[in-house]
Amino acid sequence: MRVFGDWGTTRLRLWRVEGTGAPLDRLTGPGIGQLRATPDEALREALAPWLAAGRLERITLCGMAGARNGLREAPYADCPAAARQWRRAALAAEWHGAALRLGAGLACRDAQGRPDVMRGEEAQIYGALRLRPELGAGARTFVLPGTHSKWATVRDGAITGFRTFLTGELYALLQGSSLLAARAEGGDAGGGFAAGLERAGQGGPVGALFEARSRQLRDGCGDAWAREFLSGLLIGSELAEARQAGLPGLDITLIGDAALTARYARAIDAPAAPLRLDGDACVLAGLGELDADD
Amino acid sequence: MRVFGDWGTTRLRLWRVEGTGAPLDRLTGPGIGQLRATPDEALREALAPWLAAGRLERITLCGMAGARNGLREAPYADCPAAARQWRRAALAAEWHGAALRLGAGLACRDAQGRPDVMRGEEAQIYGALRLRPELGAGARTFVLPGTHSKWATVRDGAITGFRTFLTGELYALLQGSSLLAARAEGGDAGGGFAAGLERAGQGGPVGALFEARSRQLRDGCGDAWAREFLSGLLIGSELAEARQAGLPGLDITLIGDAALTARYARAIDAPAAPLRLDGDACVLAGLGELDADD
Repeated sequence: MRVFGDWGTTRLRLWRVEGTGAPLDRLTGPGIGQLRATPDEALREALAPWLAAGRLERITLCGMAGARNGLREAPYADCPAAARQWRRAALAAEWHGAALRLGAGLACRDAQGRPDVMRGEEAQIYGALRLRPELGAGARTFVLPGTHSKWATVRDGAITGFRTFLTGELYALLQGSSLLAARAEGGDAGGGFAAGLERAGQGGPVGALFEARSRQLRDGCGDAWAREFLSGLLIGSELAEARQAGLPGLDITLIGDAALTARYARAIDAPAAPLRLDGDACVLAGLGELDADD
Repeated sequence: MRVFGDWGTTRLRLWRVEGTGAPLDRLTGPGIGQLRATPDEALREALAPWLAAGRLERITLCGMAGARNGLREAPYADCPAAARQWRRAALAAEWHGAALRLGAGLACRDAQGRPDVMRGEEAQIYGALRLRPELGAGARTFVLPGTHSKWATVRDGAITGFRTFLTGELYALLQGSSLLAARAEGGDAGGGFAAGLERAGQGGPVGALFEARSRQLRDGCGDAWAREFLSGLLIGSELAEARQAGLPGLDITLIGDAALTARYARAIDAPAAPLRLDGDACVLAGLGELDADD
């Protein structure tokens, strides 16, 4: 039995695959950030239904599985890194008699020497390049929305650098903030997202977030509207900052969950709608890339 | 017995005062956002030590005491509002046989019609104007750092408008974020605040916050450094946004806790250090203003 897995901070996804990497079956488990057991125990527990039916020969994992608090610590590959360099930086080990391959993370520094890191998103980008080889020609920006939204520049098939935006995590943290404590009823969410996007174009978020609350107290907007406003304001702020940093001068390809990439596609004001790729398809293709032999 | 109180979201502060408003004694209790009992019960419980010793004649409160979920709902006074308009907008009622005066909040709209509100900070500003009448002449910006940092413009003694920055609440929320989950040891905090301020000058916070984590993972910075970096980045972002919105074109007066106003004074790059006033002294003077009879 061969298994592919994407083990992030918030969830573990496992696929039993056949020789070609096509998925036969699927399991899920807790993220690296949510474990009560050791990563080793948690992985065995998650795999138990399959282990009861057959012997594990090979398991290939990407994401936080290779972080310091993961299953084993895998290195970072330095940018620029093409799929081949990334694959060669992987950690190879034995795990309860099976061949374990743990994908490396990627590290980069910007022109000012500031460091950035990713663990997991690189598998989706290399997967996208495997599924759509034409995307590797020339220069292109890949945007992977999520808890830590990543903007990566790809030139001639290599990831040359990237920047992390805290958009998704800020949105999650703000769900417990005073901004939504008013729990105002009434009004629908309609227009909240667009209002947030528009507000983001008029200045940074620190002085704009409170509008989610003041509009509830003064303008009859409801709680649902405020959540949409926060989503629009944060995504819009991410785009404005990326624009300011000169990041989206290139064609943008969005990778991720369809509902989230649709929000970004709406927020990106471009003559042509950006290409959107499914995150699950990309991560599976990326694990296939990682699992390949040179 | 006469009592002054400032009842905010996170804490209740009560002063027993004599006829001139000079404080004789002090008590504390839970904030409006932390109550398990009703506000009425919570206030009686906090006052119990004094109620056992004498009869309450008059109690004057500012802050979230007048919010929808407070003791009673007090109105908002619309800007521009001088101390007299604010005092006249207060709610007067009876509370268990005592005369209750609940300060109004302030509401304003900016040039684009966007609403903003405050409850409590206005007492500190009117208090500052009472303590230092010369500050009421001409135009001036009052900055009150905190959970919800307020930038208020005062012209000829009236608060003409203000904007809320979520700086302090974002800082608090980020203490539970993935940015500090690495818990890196080593390195001291030295330089973290300055690095955050500098980073804020190079673009917005959404794409800069993650540096608190990547520096721990890649540059040997510790957890303490990361917290200082976050403080500098958020305060610096607030200042950059305020500058962009044209707010600090005027002389700045800082009101608040000494440790926090010192951070802002350091962050404000001005030829002369901004005037700093103690928040407790200002709120007491403001309650005296609220308690006065026309």
